[in-house]
Amino acid sequence: MPIAKTKQNKERRQKLLESAVILFIEKGYFNTSIRDIIVLSEIGTGTFYNYFIDKEDVLKALLEEFADKIISSIKDYYQQETDIYVRFVETKRVTMEVFTQNEALSEIYSRVAGASTPIDQCLQQFEDRLIEFYTRNIEYGIKFGVFRNIPASPIAHSILAIEKFLLYKWVVLKAITKEEMIEMVVSFHETLANGLLNTR
Amino acid sequence: MPIAKTKQNKERRQKLLESAVILFIEKGYFNTSIRDIIVLSEIGTGTFYNYFIDKEDVLKALLEEFADKIISSIKDYYQQETDIYVRFVETKRVTMEVFTQNEALSEIYSRVAGASTPIDQCLQQFEDRLIEFYTRNIEYGIKFGVFRNIPASPIAHSILAIEKFLLYKWVVLKAITKEEMIEMVVSFHETLANGLLNTR
Repeated sequence: MPIAKTKQNKERRQKLLESAVILFIEKGYFNTSIRDIIVLSEIGTGTFYNYFIDKEDVLKALLEEFADKIISSIKDYYQQETDIYVRFVETKRVTMEVFTQNEALSEIYSRVAGASTPIDQCLQQFEDRLIEFYTRNIEYGIKFGVFRNIPASPIAHSILAIEKFLLYKWVVLKAITKEEMIEMVVSFHETLANGLLNTR
Repeated sequence: MPIAKTKQNKERRQKLLESAVILFIEKGYFNTSIRDIIVLSEIGTGTFYNYFIDKEDVLKALLEEFADKIISSIKDYYQQETDIYVRFVETKRVTMEVFTQNEALSEIYSRVAGASTPIDQCLQQFEDRLIEFYTRNIEYGIKFGVFRNIPASPIAHSILAIEKFLLYKWVVLKAITKEEMIEMVVSFHETLANGLLNTR
């Protein structure tokens, strides 16, 4: 029964990912071993290597799923709203809500940056995907004459930068509340959107 | 001779700081011990503790000096330029140039974030000082009617966020060149400044 087999595979992989998240939060990414992940997920040692090459590969898979979630939440929101200005601002609220709903992943993402080259590559893949998605959305606004004809990439970078920075301030430093974080991200994008608009 | 003594003290402290920077880059912050710093600086063991409590205290001192440099470079630029719009954009170029002129400190700053609570506190002190300084400058523009009456703090946070993010992309990831980094920071702030302006 190949369908049952595929389902089982998927569940095992998911179990490994979930165990990794728990351990990365509890012990920290660097203090977690592949052995720890195998023990917690109650899956055979060899099985781990059917799904992942090493610990970085687990992190990469987690961040890939996370990027999928963020992008699909924004796309869902697009179904409800067509005004490009409102979209530009409110999708940032949507994004920050996905971050707050996935606090463990947000914390892992915020804590591992800069630590080593393989990790930086995992993060870069995650961030580049979001930056490309943001760039396309800004270019859409430019194409339809709603936004001025400015370079979209620096803006897309800044969007991710402010999201990342305020996320870190909330989830790592605990210097602001969840609500303050969302409010600041939205407020900033209102001002930025004003700078993007062709007329206003 | 207390003046000579003060001068010697200052030089010793400076020697310790310089040795720390070399080691933090060569071995990484986490793999550097106080012992390593003492050995490289050729200063007596007890002497270290006349100046610093622990390794985090060294990092704090380095970041404090770094913030001083950034803020004083911006203040120097203010002497040459009075137009608030030009100032808002061009001070970002000045800031990024200070970062590039202090590549080792920039790399240390970019690499240590998120690793532990004491380090996060060092970083927060550094970042909060810059954010406060940026906030005051935006409020100055609002007070004089050049900028619209918007919340200044989210904007100040975003400025530091984009600076930090593109710095990391240059100095850690090596994904962009120094020139691309400066160009992106300036381009973004031109768009943002447009959103801040009362008339234009």
